[in-house]
Amino acid sequence: MEKKRVGVLLSGCGVMDGSEIHEATLTLYFLDKEGAEIICMAPDKDQRDVVNHISGEPVSEKRNVMAEAARIARGKIQDVRAVKAVDIDALVIPGGFGAAKNLCSFAVDGAACKVDENVAVLLRELHESKKPIGALCIAPAVIAGVFGKICAPEITIGSDAQTAAAMETMGARHKTAAFDEIVVDSKNRIVTTPCYMTAQSIQETGAGIEKLVAKIMEMINS
Amino acid sequence: MEKKRVGVLLSGCGVMDGSEIHEATLTLYFLDKEGAEIICMAPDKDQRDVVNHISGEPVSEKRNVMAEAARIARGKIQDVRAVKAVDIDALVIPGGFGAAKNLCSFAVDGAACKVDENVAVLLRELHESKKPIGALCIAPAVIAGVFGKICAPEITIGSDAQTAAAMETMGARHKTAAFDEIVVDSKNRIVTTPCYMTAQSIQETGAGIEKLVAKIMEMINS
Repeated sequence: MEKKRVGVLLSGCGVMDGSEIHEATLTLYFLDKEGAEIICMAPDKDQRDVVNHISGEPVSEKRNVMAEAARIARGKIQDVRAVKAVDIDALVIPGGFGAAKNLCSFAVDGAACKVDENVAVLLRELHESKKPIGALCIAPAVIAGVFGKICAPEITIGSDAQTAAAMETMGARHKTAAFDEIVVDSKNRIVTTPCYMTAQSIQETGAGIEKLVAKIMEMINS
Repeated sequence: MEKKRVGVLLSGCGVMDGSEIHEATLTLYFLDKEGAEIICMAPDKDQRDVVNHISGEPVSEKRNVMAEAARIARGKIQDVRAVKAVDIDALVIPGGFGAAKNLCSFAVDGAACKVDENVAVLLRELHESKKPIGALCIAPAVIAGVFGKICAPEITIGSDAQTAAAMETMGARHKTAAFDEIVVDSKNRIVTTPCYMTAQSIQETGAGIEKLVAKIMEMINS
């Protein structure tokens, strides 16, 4: 049987200005265990900012989202702009502030956030092709930004009331969930899990990712 | 029962100039699953180089090993210089070129490599205290650099003849191993596994790390 091709949309490398590394790596790990062929991608543009991960303070430096994401992908990465829905059977978006800074502007604009145009195009294509999409942690903000006004997807960002309210303002329906739970919108074929929005450890974060990846693979085959 | 404290010695963030991200993350994941308290550390100094992970080419940029390693550690990291053997029950060193560029100079000096002095001091203290040490991928070069002439530890870097010969020149005894095997030097309490030196995927890399972490935890308790 041919391997299922699952895209992983990265947003840099590091929780404070890019993809959360544990979430991204465990996504790759569980996808590989499920027998998927993994296609890593990221926007080829400057990061919104670069943050020193010891101090938590921004520094005056420029880094490219795709070049940093390539650290997680071990060099094998594509510009998201070059990826079409026909190239993949599903997509997973790990969290980290990069999802809310580089894939969309939720970190600064809240419910008024704008989604990166190349990301939005791919997501809409996937949705139209009925291909499943998974989003971890704060990455459901990207889902809400693209689909909120179109199909009111049911998603989770965990249990933070303010963030959940912003998702609803964007048109999504929010469901509270724990780190080891997934929220499945079967109609829209969207799966989300809170990861570090509620998880206290890497093991807890892994629990939700393992379930989400299994569900995405099941959806591809159904 | 009190949690066992296991140090994870990082060397940056990214396979080409720092810690290999999958190896580092899966080390944290399996340690957490085994119930360990994790203490991340790295040298507080400039990286030997910064490499663009798409092109594989060095760029004219400076990055601090500890600040980049903090991306993997989600901000919770210590200067290796401040860590004493008494602070931890065991240590694991993930691979990536950072282990051979920033923890020691094996990547440029081969068998004539020098080990970072603060790293060497901690490793010698741990060995004298009979605390187990694990090393993944190319990180056994650090082990060979510190202990080769002292106690001829048995290690593996996989199956690459030239790298293995360099380890033997440094005084270590090399044993060929596959990605899902660990080499255990019970006398010296040192455990190694090849990871991406032979693994073709993240799942394969995880197989060796899972075994190494289990063995390290077992050694702490024996």
